[in-house]
Amino acid sequence: MHPAPDGSTGPAAHPNDPRVGELAEGEILRRILARLGEASTALVGPGDDAAVIAAPDARVVVTTDTLVHGPDFRLAWSAPYDIGWKAAAVNLADVAAMGARPTGLVVALAVPPALPVSLVEGIAEGLRAACDAMAPGCSVVGGDLTASDTLTIAVTAFGSLDGRAPVLRSGARAGDTLAVSGGALGTAARGLAVLFERGVDAAGTPIPLDASRLPAADAAALAVQLRPTPPLAAGIAAARAGATAMMDISDGLALDASRIAAMSGVSVDIFSAALGPNSAWALGGGEDHGLLATFPANVQLPEEFRAIGRVLPAGGEAVRIDGRAWDGKPGWDPYRDWDERVG
Amino acid sequence: MHPAPDGSTGPAAHPNDPRVGELAEGEILRRILARLGEASTALVGPGDDAAVIAAPDARVVVTTDTLVHGPDFRLAWSAPYDIGWKAAAVNLADVAAMGARPTGLVVALAVPPALPVSLVEGIAEGLRAACDAMAPGCSVVGGDLTASDTLTIAVTAFGSLDGRAPVLRSGARAGDTLAVSGGALGTAARGLAVLFERGVDAAGTPIPLDASRLPAADAAALAVQLRPTPPLAAGIAAARAGATAMMDISDGLALDASRIAAMSGVSVDIFSAALGPNSAWALGGGEDHGLLATFPANVQLPEEFRAIGRVLPAGGEAVRIDGRAWDGKPGWDPYRDWDERVG
Repeated sequence: MHPAPDGSTGPAAHPNDPRVGELAEGEILRRILARLGEASTALVGPGDDAAVIAAPDARVVVTTDTLVHGPDFRLAWSAPYDIGWKAAAVNLADVAAMGARPTGLVVALAVPPALPVSLVEGIAEGLRAACDAMAPGCSVVGGDLTASDTLTIAVTAFGSLDGRAPVLRSGARAGDTLAVSGGALGTAARGLAVLFERGVDAAGTPIPLDASRLPAADAAALAVQLRPTPPLAAGIAAARAGATAMMDISDGLALDASRIAAMSGVSVDIFSAALGPNSAWALGGGEDHGLLATFPANVQLPEEFRAIGRVLPAGGEAVRIDGRAWDGKPGWDPYRDWDERVG
Repeated sequence: MHPAPDGSTGPAAHPNDPRVGELAEGEILRRILARLGEASTALVGPGDDAAVIAAPDARVVVTTDTLVHGPDFRLAWSAPYDIGWKAAAVNLADVAAMGARPTGLVVALAVPPALPVSLVEGIAEGLRAACDAMAPGCSVVGGDLTASDTLTIAVTAFGSLDGRAPVLRSGARAGDTLAVSGGALGTAARGLAVLFERGVDAAGTPIPLDASRLPAADAAALAVQLRPTPPLAAGIAAARAGATAMMDISDGLALDASRIAAMSGVSVDIFSAALGPNSAWALGGGEDHGLLATFPANVQLPEEFRAIGRVLPAGGEAVRIDGRAWDGKPGWDPYRDWDERVG
């Protein structure tokens, strides 16, 4: 590993690999498109002023989420492939959280001219791999490339409800079962802690970390942090089963549950026993990208979901743990929690 | 005017105006939403994991374009309102260039924590004003806010073709009439030149410019550069009239015409007399955001369009001026043309 041209450490460019600023925009776009694959799912794909995608039931689900170098990732820690994968995954999770099927992405890349073109190629490969693995039939249908001092990947994702009603955050009712889908909550936060504990030098600056030298559980948590795999099919299953509310768990279970509570006019009680041995990670961590949903008590949960609590009438604390107010750290806030010095 | 916290000069914050980094994300989002208006055109508007917008003919047009502080705008030159307006306008122009009607925007804002919240509020006001003025029925339906070292506004715009076929870049045929819609070509480039000539200090650093002290033509060009008004209705009119190809003129007429030529397998001949007294600005400038379209020779041009040339078979130069190869400066390339030192 050598210092990356943005001043952080990161993967070294091959000596023959040009910098982004050395190639014409059209040549960079050709290299990106070659990695996105020929089989776009779009009616009109990349290369025109806009793309056209199918919206079979005359509605389209749209969401946008951006990854910024510094607060959201570091080149020292994430391979370009990881960055592309995660940018797709976090957006696909938001589509799934409405009960929708992902149908396409557009990607706006803002890239410092001194970065190697291979970085952009790697991001494209990660975007495509995430779609292929998690949302077959969904692909990148368009994008934008511009210069910037800060590497930024803004993705907008689209989805089809295929005739179903969207599952909102506002539909939870007292008596509902609170349930989650996806991997163990808190794992991504543990992966982030591994990076901050073992992936920094003495001054706290991010440096590359050799995952093969980590304890297995730490390595697994790191993989979840860098390449999340939200349970996209579970979102559709929840909608079909009659989920009353649903959301992507991106800012920690406690904060996200409080959002469903606020928008639904209810409170929730979480059973700590359902959260595993370290419930503090589960409640206060971020970037899980599982799905949090509520179901009427008489509904059998889809196989992807496990019950973790129940919905109660409003009153008192919006979120309780085993009936008591939770006093732990709330979830991630991009301004409160980002330290510019260490990223 | 006082130095803005990003190191450039720009509008001063009111002493009581908090910085973005001083408020919780939720409070900033509340301030943004208050300025976007209550009447979202979305089926599901801001505040959930994703929005849902109508796609009446079971297709949706999607396009994304990003404005980055430095290459695309400077706080010394653009008011926050201008930045929001332009971010909407350049995306709405791409929707119109397909022959579609804009139906919604999502906006990903990446903002340095030290910038005043009033800047974000001003961007929201500009986004809304641009939609209200140019695309009634279109509004911001969702977004994302994150911290960054570089102020970045990534907009994705949506549109409905209302049953029409999209007008692509690839449909021009020999014999077609080449036509444009929108203001005088080259005006935005002239406005940019005014900024670089009169809006910089001795070291070339951008400084605020008092438009009221400029000659009227320069002030008008500056307004076109800062707050473009693409002819959105003309895009629909062109589609209805049978345009064979169309695109947004964003990188200069010569370069953009060469793109239609390449994708259609034709060449084009532009009549310099149709471009006004300074055809070099018109051909080589950028950011006009007019529409360039081709129509069968027997079609009466929609009233918004004026003929500027004709489509010829492929062979020789893709773009000719009065029958001769054009040897001027090609259009804008974000990497080749951006000077990091002066932005």
